[in-house]
Amino acid sequence: MTNDATATPDLNDLTIAVLGGTGPQGRGLARRFAQAGLKVVLGSRTAEKGEAAAAELSAAIGVPVSGSDNRGASEAGDIVLVVVPWDGHGELLADLKPALDGKIVVDCVNPLGFDKQGAYALPVAEGSATQQAAAILTESTVVGAFHNVSAVLLEDPDVTDLGTDVLVLGDEREATDLVQALADTIPGVRGVYGGRRRNAHQVEALTANLISMNRRYKAHAGVRVTDV
Amino acid sequence: MTNDATATPDLNDLTIAVLGGTGPQGRGLARRFAQAGLKVVLGSRTAEKGEAAAAELSAAIGVPVSGSDNRGASEAGDIVLVVVPWDGHGELLADLKPALDGKIVVDCVNPLGFDKQGAYALPVAEGSATQQAAAILTESTVVGAFHNVSAVLLEDPDVTDLGTDVLVLGDEREATDLVQALADTIPGVRGVYGGRRRNAHQVEALTANLISMNRRYKAHAGVRVTDV
Repeated sequence: MTNDATATPDLNDLTIAVLGGTGPQGRGLARRFAQAGLKVVLGSRTAEKGEAAAAELSAAIGVPVSGSDNRGASEAGDIVLVVVPWDGHGELLADLKPALDGKIVVDCVNPLGFDKQGAYALPVAEGSATQQAAAILTESTVVGAFHNVSAVLLEDPDVTDLGTDVLVLGDEREATDLVQALADTIPGVRGVYGGRRRNAHQVEALTANLISMNRRYKAHAGVRVTDV
Repeated sequence: MTNDATATPDLNDLTIAVLGGTGPQGRGLARRFAQAGLKVVLGSRTAEKGEAAAAELSAAIGVPVSGSDNRGASEAGDIVLVVVPWDGHGELLADLKPALDGKIVVDCVNPLGFDKQGAYALPVAEGSATQQAAAILTESTVVGAFHNVSAVLLEDPDVTDLGTDVLVLGDEREATDLVQALADTIPGVRGVYGGRRRNAHQVEALTANLISMNRRYKAHAGVRVTDV
């Protein structure tokens, strides 16, 4: 771990892969990164779906976006965002492990359950989705981020300022700095270091609270850290 | 549970008790409530300590504050804030149960551990401190709140705008509305409904992340909910 502050790395030299890029959250993040001029590859369960989603997004925003299956996207990406359903999360990552070795993997998954009282945090044996990813992907650098950003706002072309922070969790300073810089490319978003991986659970789970607030206040709630 | 929005209740008719009122967080909350013109009773392990802390606070801010032991404060309070160490939390509440029956109890406790890597969330059998309180205090209305507010800012007389939100968690609408109104009496603080008690754990645990941010950014980090 580097403890010194590092210069912002140049994201323009890197390919950003988004696994689960056909869901609203993955699609929304891919949209914003592509609009920021970054090279983006959408991954999906099949190459056909990934390519179709990429073509649709590309047409909507007027910049090129590639599509592939999740394995192809993992191979193409330097930074690989995991934006897949919690159900199957561990199995998918174990399957993709060889393609993810040596890369920065950004887990964005919120393990939540839903019932008639709303959303709630599911227990995770490893502590959190981020820690599960780190336990499986022993040759990758695993960071947790983008848990609390509204997919609705990400996907809305009229929203030019998301006005929210992204908490970035990880144990390796260079990687968290890089993912903070990635978050900063989204208009109105600030990447903020949020602690180590062992403190990822509560940030993932907080999405359940934001869903409760959305219901109460008819909002797309997000989080800003104050005094930082 | 009342699902309808209710008018803001009149806090001026109520006594606010702060158990653990001699620690920085309890003392800081008591200071702000007393400065807002509310009737405040500080509780501590002994009546002597509670009275001494109340006298000191009263002299510092120029308004009357009462002091007592935790049982006396529980008896005196209409809204009773629990701001005690996590170690002994359950035993204290079980001991005070008769005095707390029928009252609104606001649990402010963060079950955290500390090691050389910083703070981390402790596992809680009931899910959270708030849920533990609710499991013990079956005749009280238990709300979780004030978890993420910096004691340093609360206690600093030069801070006239805390610029942060207080997430209020509970299953009974009248009680959460009342505690939101209580939070609103602190300058620059907004009480925001944050979900049900079952989603209290992550709000308590988030304090570990804020402690990490304080260390990284030399700040007194807090949380604002955006789009609400």
